[in-house]
Amino acid sequence: MPRTQPPTRFAYLGPEGTFAEAALSSAVPPGEGSRQPAASVPAALAAVRSGEADAALVPIENSVEGAVPATMDALADGDPLLITREVFLAVSFVLAVRPGTELAAVRSVASHPHALAQTARRLAELLPGVVPLPATSTAGAARQVADGEVDAAVCAPIAAQRYGLAPLVEDVADHPGAVTRFVLVAPPGPLPAPTGNDKTSLVAVVGDRTGALLELLREFSVRGISLTRIESRPTRERLGVYSFSLDCEGHAADARVGEALAGLHRVCDDVRFLGSYPRADGRENKPVPPTAADDAFAEAAGWLQAVREGRA
Amino acid sequence: MPRTQPPTRFAYLGPEGTFAEAALSSAVPPGEGSRQPAASVPAALAAVRSGEADAALVPIENSVEGAVPATMDALADGDPLLITREVFLAVSFVLAVRPGTELAAVRSVASHPHALAQTARRLAELLPGVVPLPATSTAGAARQVADGEVDAAVCAPIAAQRYGLAPLVEDVADHPGAVTRFVLVAPPGPLPAPTGNDKTSLVAVVGDRTGALLELLREFSVRGISLTRIESRPTRERLGVYSFSLDCEGHAADARVGEALAGLHRVCDDVRFLGSYPRADGRENKPVPPTAADDAFAEAAGWLQAVREGRA
Amino acid sequence: MPRTQPPTRFAYLGPEGTFAEAALSSAVPPGEGSRQPAASVPAALAAVRSGEADAALVPIENSVEGAVPATMDALADGDPLLITREVFLAVSFVLAVRPGTELAAVRSVASHPHALAQTARRLAELLPGVVPLPATSTAGAARQVADGEVDAAVCAPIAAQRYGLAPLVEDVADHPGAVTRFVLVAPPGPLPAPTGNDKTSLVAVVGDRTGALLELLREFSVRGISLTRIESRPTRERLGVYSFSLDCEGHAADARVGEALAGLHRVCDDVRFLGSYPRADGRENKPVPPTAADDAFAEAAGWLQAVREGRA
Amino acid sequence: MPRTQPPTRFAYLGPEGTFAEAALSSAVPPGEGSRQPAASVPAALAAVRSGEADAALVPIENSVEGAVPATMDALADGDPLLITREVFLAVSFVLAVRPGTELAAVRSVASHPHALAQTARRLAELLPGVVPLPATSTAGAARQVADGEVDAAVCAPIAAQRYGLAPLVEDVADHPGAVTRFVLVAPPGPLPAPTGNDKTSLVAVVGDRTGALLELLREFSVRGISLTRIESRPTRERLGVYSFSLDCEGHAADARVGEALAGLHRVCDDVRFLGSYPRADGRENKPVPPTAADDAFAEAAGWLQAVREGRA
Repeated sequence: MPRTQPPTRFAYLGPEGTFAEAALSSAVPPGEGSRQPAASVPAALAAVRSGEADAALVPIENSVEGAVPATMDALADGDPLLITREVFLAVSFVLAVRPGTELAAVRSVASHPHALAQTARRLAELLPGVVPLPATSTAGAARQVADGEVDAAVCAPIAAQRYGLAPLVEDVADHPGAVTRFVLVAPPGPLPAPTGNDKTSLVAVVGDRTGALLELLREFSVRGISLTRIESRPTRERLGVYSFSLDCEGHAADARVGEALAGLHRVCDDVRFLGSYPRADGRENKPVPPTAADDAFAEAAGWLQAVREGRA
Repeated sequence: MPRTQPPTRFAYLGPEGTFAEAALSSAVPPGEGSRQPAASVPAALAAVRSGEADAALVPIENSVEGAVPATMDALADGDPLLITREVFLAVSFVLAVRPGTELAAVRSVASHPHALAQTARRLAELLPGVVPLPATSTAGAARQVADGEVDAAVCAPIAAQRYGLAPLVEDVADHPGAVTRFVLVAPPGPLPAPTGNDKTSLVAVVGDRTGALLELLREFSVRGISLTRIESRPTRERLGVYSFSLDCEGHAADARVGEALAGLHRVCDDVRFLGSYPRADGRENKPVPPTAADDAFAEAAGWLQAVREGRA
Repeated sequence: MPRTQPPTRFAYLGPEGTFAEAALSSAVPPGEGSRQPAASVPAALAAVRSGEADAALVPIENSVEGAVPATMDALADGDPLLITREVFLAVSFVLAVRPGTELAAVRSVASHPHALAQTARRLAELLPGVVPLPATSTAGAARQVADGEVDAAVCAPIAAQRYGLAPLVEDVADHPGAVTRFVLVAPPGPLPAPTGNDKTSLVAVVGDRTGALLELLREFSVRGISLTRIESRPTRERLGVYSFSLDCEGHAADARVGEALAGLHRVCDDVRFLGSYPRADGRENKPVPPTAADDAFAEAAGWLQAVREGRA
Repeated sequence: MPRTQPPTRFAYLGPEGTFAEAALSSAVPPGEGSRQPAASVPAALAAVRSGEADAALVPIENSVEGAVPATMDALADGDPLLITREVFLAVSFVLAVRPGTELAAVRSVASHPHALAQTARRLAELLPGVVPLPATSTAGAARQVADGEVDAAVCAPIAAQRYGLAPLVEDVADHPGAVTRFVLVAPPGPLPAPTGNDKTSLVAVVGDRTGALLELLREFSVRGISLTRIESRPTRERLGVYSFSLDCEGHAADARVGEALAGLHRVCDDVRFLGSYPRADGRENKPVPPTAADDAFAEAAGWLQAVREGRA
């Protein structure tokens, strides 16, 4: 069911109060459109595929909320979906309690096991002797605090706020500065217009032979395109076949990216285009070499036509 | 503290009853050496670095027990450690209960959130209306069952066995056939002897310029070496610098792999060697091209010496 | 002055009786069109450029008649010309005399210095003590024999025939089996239709930086195109600039060759297209990989359009 | 017969008075050693191979004295020889006459056909109506003038001087500025010491498959080495086999060049090393990238040893 309207019904990796919800709010002002939490990344994407939601916001890199490979896999398989936007969110944990609770009174603390792992040292200092309890999500832990089941939660500020908790200690991550990358995913439809600072995502499947990856990467480098991420992914179904999930600089509408995509489509066993969208990590794409700019492609195409007609 | 003896004290990603313990048992017969669970991958590696343990078994790919990026990062940073072995383990979940419990009597079920995600559909069929509860690990959930806190756990067969539970339903994964890759990690010391079917792991850091990855991969392909895994890893510390974690076919003792490693050492900002060890995924390395075999390197070295001495 | 009609007035590297004339006769039946000898390759090409001739047949590789670099240079500079055909001719020298002359009576022998060099050993055996005399061309030597200036000439069979001489000894080359490659050159105009076994010639100019040649060659290899000849040519005019003269398999009308030409046009300082024409050396082009065939390009273009329109 | 002493007996492409003799004099002061003209490049090299001469000076690029491919071929085949030096000589033609002859009195002019071709326009202006006569060499033409056989010769200044002629007109080339590259060739023996600005020459033979040339060039580029010349050469003997004659920057004693040579030796069907010698065209090699310098190789070798011993 292709898109025809801007999305108004948003799914996100829930429950309420996750970093995904915070990321969605940073991308779409809270007043715009409805939003529904989903139990998992596959569930969020399924909501888009079935038409229940117009778009879904899910973590794709480095998240503490859940397995990112799940997002990669859920995008690579099933009905096609397109990334229309990326959102980066600083992952800032707070130790949240019911208002009025003091640190000395905290006898139990809960969070998602990933969040507990990322705050283990600080928790041991702050709450010596307290054994952390697992929760299904950081937001779920916040709710448990609100419900009085545990005394404290390691969660996102938005979760503390949503469940009426007080942030007793800010920034309890052992290694502060973590950032999670989220993507907004929608059904096939018009690509976001090129902005001059875009990224393109895709999954390419190639046979397992020496140099296959190099061959794949040549399609980018020969056209002056930089990659920003690459991951080999095992393909369970077929032995001896590799899948590469990658992001490159540029937009499918750019001549150089288009030619590279077409080249990959020719030489790979399979290519799934996952979208072109504005780069949002605060960095600028590397300058496009003049020989790879759109006008260089246009000029070369004109010259080739003259060559083929015997006019050159 | 370099190795001088074969390891006898093993750490593993705990608690007892995890897939990591099962993987360790498949690699080291249960009677050999002592083994101690660690609370996390970093904790397991820290035990090796501090000398408390001689080696640690931790998941590195596709695990349900915890974040694999954690393993990558923990190997890439801190004191050097070497992978001396890889172990593949089929991830087979059972629904474990106290002996005598029937399915109809199960009112609660717990597991690690990842395991719950991978068994969500089956659980909904088997236990309609039961809301799964999060646990810190699959083994922890099994212990909760043994303790009577919950009725059932989604866990490894080894956990059921260890906690005296009965496997009420076997293979409850929604997508059966998952395999987790574990590695046995030790302090620096003699590399495992080449077997003819080995893998080599490393982390390479390169500046963020177009074609940097291609340059890196050329060091392998020009010497006829295949990669089996590659992942770009963000380097938080330094903007504009990329880190690639990768495995290739072959052993550091092989001439072609050695020359490629030395080449990477020259052209990369940094290279960390993570070990050469027997390939254990049941596949054979691709045949080494005759032009990349050790005797071809030896013959070429002899010829070069003659050339340099003016005898050729 | 672009072509509009098939050529009827042919120039060739003269004088009459050269291998070039023989090659022209093998390409264009003697009765078809007029033919005029030219004093040099540049002169032959100048006749085409000025409109005096419709096409010129000149040697381009391995010739004994004159310097092949001259042909390369004359094609690379000046008004554009296109190769429309290649012709291979076995270079078979005869020792030609006036009818009735016996070997013992030969007191003098003449030929072009290159031909004398290629027959030096045989001449020393056949005519011990006779000092060979230089001539401007092999055909010129034949004419000198006819004129009674010398007793024998080393020349092409066609020259013996044209000047009424008898081939006293056949195949007097020290290393028999030499073949010269000639090209038929015409003003810009419609390219010869693709035959499925074509070659394309061009000159590419690149800056003198490490890897510039590799970059150039990647434009071919990434599209599955084989080269059949490459030569670096010094560019006198500009220091630090290299020129490469090369032939590849395929026709400019082929999608893969067209895209490679356009790519070269983008990344090189200059590209001069020198023509696409049927391969005539008796060999077959290497099979086109399915991923580089025209229908693979067409299919990929269709897919790219769908991607760009958000339909993929 | 390997070299043990510096050469004292020099052969050169004769006859006396050729540019080759001038080049030899510019390389070896006239008083040092004896010198003997040879009738051809193969003859000059044969003199070295047989031990009659210690070294031979022959043209290798762009010469007017004779076919350069002859030099390439004569070096590529037969007993091994090494280039120990390159010499560049400005090819400056003079119109030489017997002293006292005035231009108006010149009724005949002779030279090697190549030299006549390179001075055709000037001769037509200077000597309208005079038909140039071919000679075996430019020096031979000068001798003919001295002998009174013709009135003028197009030859090297050294030839005019040697035969007591007067340079009636200097620089009669149509395109002045031509330079010929000569090489001094000796039997195998110690290579000239590296100077920091050296060249290395070789011939590599590869099978005729798509990408074979690229594979060959990768051995250079992956190690940061620039080529200064490349030429594909047909190999008559074996169909489907290509030979590449090339020069690169650097010396066989350099780590990067040595590793590239050994790499070529592994991946090519055949490699013939033709020598490392000081660059003499007045240009500087491109700066060696720090990652390809000898100390980078040495440091990487040390690191690799530590890796292999489990110390890294």
